[in-house]
Amino acid sequence: MDNFEFLSPTKIIFGKGAEDQLVREVKKLGKKILLHYGEGSIKRIGLYDQVVKSLQEAGIDFIELGGVKPNPRLSLVYEGIKLCREHKVDGILAVGGGSAIDSAKAIGVGVPYDGDVWDFYCGKNLPEETLPVGVVLTLAATGSEASNSSVITKEDGWLKRGLNIDLIRPVFAIMNPEHTFTVSRYQTACGGADIMSHVFERYFTNTKNVELTDRLCEAVLKTVVNNLPVALAQPDNYDARAELLWAGTLAHNGLLSTGRGGNGDWAAHKIELELSGLYDVAHGAGLAAIFPAWMKYVYRHDLNRFVQLAVRVWNVEPDFANPERTALEGIDRLTKFFKECGLPTTLAEMNIPADRLEEMARKATRDGQMVIGQFVKLTTEDVVAIYKLAL
Amino acid sequence: MDNFEFLSPTKIIFGKGAEDQLVREVKKLGKKILLHYGEGSIKRIGLYDQVVKSLQEAGIDFIELGGVKPNPRLSLVYEGIKLCREHKVDGILAVGGGSAIDSAKAIGVGVPYDGDVWDFYCGKNLPEETLPVGVVLTLAATGSEASNSSVITKEDGWLKRGLNIDLIRPVFAIMNPEHTFTVSRYQTACGGADIMSHVFERYFTNTKNVELTDRLCEAVLKTVVNNLPVALAQPDNYDARAELLWAGTLAHNGLLSTGRGGNGDWAAHKIELELSGLYDVAHGAGLAAIFPAWMKYVYRHDLNRFVQLAVRVWNVEPDFANPERTALEGIDRLTKFFKECGLPTTLAEMNIPADRLEEMARKATRDGQMVIGQFVKLTTEDVVAIYKLAL
Repeated sequence: MDNFEFLSPTKIIFGKGAEDQLVREVKKLGKKILLHYGEGSIKRIGLYDQVVKSLQEAGIDFIELGGVKPNPRLSLVYEGIKLCREHKVDGILAVGGGSAIDSAKAIGVGVPYDGDVWDFYCGKNLPEETLPVGVVLTLAATGSEASNSSVITKEDGWLKRGLNIDLIRPVFAIMNPEHTFTVSRYQTACGGADIMSHVFERYFTNTKNVELTDRLCEAVLKTVVNNLPVALAQPDNYDARAELLWAGTLAHNGLLSTGRGGNGDWAAHKIELELSGLYDVAHGAGLAAIFPAWMKYVYRHDLNRFVQLAVRVWNVEPDFANPERTALEGIDRLTKFFKECGLPTTLAEMNIPADRLEEMARKATRDGQMVIGQFVKLTTEDVVAIYKLAL
Repeated sequence: MDNFEFLSPTKIIFGKGAEDQLVREVKKLGKKILLHYGEGSIKRIGLYDQVVKSLQEAGIDFIELGGVKPNPRLSLVYEGIKLCREHKVDGILAVGGGSAIDSAKAIGVGVPYDGDVWDFYCGKNLPEETLPVGVVLTLAATGSEASNSSVITKEDGWLKRGLNIDLIRPVFAIMNPEHTFTVSRYQTACGGADIMSHVFERYFTNTKNVELTDRLCEAVLKTVVNNLPVALAQPDNYDARAELLWAGTLAHNGLLSTGRGGNGDWAAHKIELELSGLYDVAHGAGLAAIFPAWMKYVYRHDLNRFVQLAVRVWNVEPDFANPERTALEGIDRLTKFFKECGLPTTLAEMNIPADRLEEMARKATRDGQMVIGQFVKLTTEDVVAIYKLAL
């Protein structure tokens, strides 16, 4: 096991009626709040009205900025920063999924910073201060509600980049599984793929003797495998939605990285970010195509680990004479699972042509100046090969 | 899944050399520190000298109170409170195992309180303030390093009582598995039994559809089952010690209770507390005798749950025609496991006679005025029956 530090101070308020605690929690953000949200789904489910009413009844002063898009954009972050400065906002309440939260985190670190907030995303600088961010979550997917991550897309060049720092972990997260009942079948599946991918990024490590966190990872994966099909078939199945919602948080709050050397592999995510940056496909859908391809490309690096995944998560009967067969069967079952959930598992299914693979690979590796990944370090050529396996 | 709130803000610094971060962390406790520890094991392993040297070199002002005994005593807590008030201490650094930490937590809530700190342990009052507590941990067992619990024994009547409140979670915990290398074979085994018991208390719930936390519980249990024998055979096996140390924290920081209705069952703990309160046996040893007896007494209440435990944790092949046989085989394997680890599994082995079982049962149930447990609610008579099963 490797050395680690772990701090996950986000207060979780989970369950039916969790939003009744909103006022108690939101007061911790300060006196003047920015209410930040997306393109309307929170209005359709009545959550917007409920939140606004709670804030008004409690006499909490707030301004609003809606319109966060999936793959949240830098231009709206700039707008949010300007608004917060003008109105002397103390804290931000994000209502929605990962996009609204990531955007709120970016605004939070941007407000007290003299320079361009993009500096934090392109690695030029690290934030030292933030406005506090609270969350009312409506989607089981990114884990942003308790994570140290924020991913923002800069429209100029469609660059999608992430910031990872404990400073930006939300102060609280209100999580009512009922708020996810109306998430579409496709978005639910994408969320499940995202959660599983967050676990995979941690699962594939070169650190030996990590039994506890291996098993915690497997626990989260099995829970998604068992509950995602239920949620797809019965969108208002509270327990399945609850399992997915809590799994999404634990997949990405850092617990599953503890002792495993750094924060994970993240090559597949970086490879996918170029896809969803350039073609604006759903992040989870991109991952459903990229992860099996990445696995096929790297499994020989640690065959035993892939056998373990196949046996423990996919219940593959081990072929002791031919462990490679077991490992590949595990990857195959992952692909089949994604397909059964209605996700694309090839770039073709997302109408992504083969003509810009090298361009994306170069962007992912910063023009070949970086190798990506920890488990296996990948060059531009490796990334092209993985895109091709996903065609 | 049930509603829950979860907050686990303790910063974990884990691994070789973790104590190098002591000064950085201890400064967060304030300017004047109480260094609180046990009966000398931290001096034998050189940790005391190392901590004192670090504090002195960093110019941190501190006073000392050693002498915490296993099953920490109220009289020393009173002494600590007096000392902290006299010296205007800002925070407490506990160095040692659960006893030192529990004692530090009691002193922490006692200092700013006008009444008798025992009020918090006998349920007369709840603390509203505490001095911050930091931890350098030397034992994988109680999980007190990140938990909301403290258990103190009042010598007058040998009453052993617990306080559970988020307020008393430590601010930081420095956890170097090397500091547990010299823990004796017996204490290591007791610690393992304690960790497993903390999981069992959560595992046995009447809440349905708790797949994720079931699997997280099973992950921690399997990790202890696989690593405790290694640590017993090779006391300086870093990886086995590390697995146990991190398992001990996660078993009791509240994560495994999330969504499972309240904070757990705790009947077996309460039954054991009377044993270790009256006879001063090690808590983990008492649990090794009580838990199998409790299980035999209650398993019919939810046979399927006991079958699941047997199959998933003990690898028992399910007897589909006779699930009761599977459940009992699981309980049997737990008993055998404790025996193989050198733990007593009967009261007789701890030289506890049969003549005060009713007295203990009455104390556990507050003279029959309380039923104890959530999974199965136990009366005084039930508790006597469980003690008898453990004879």
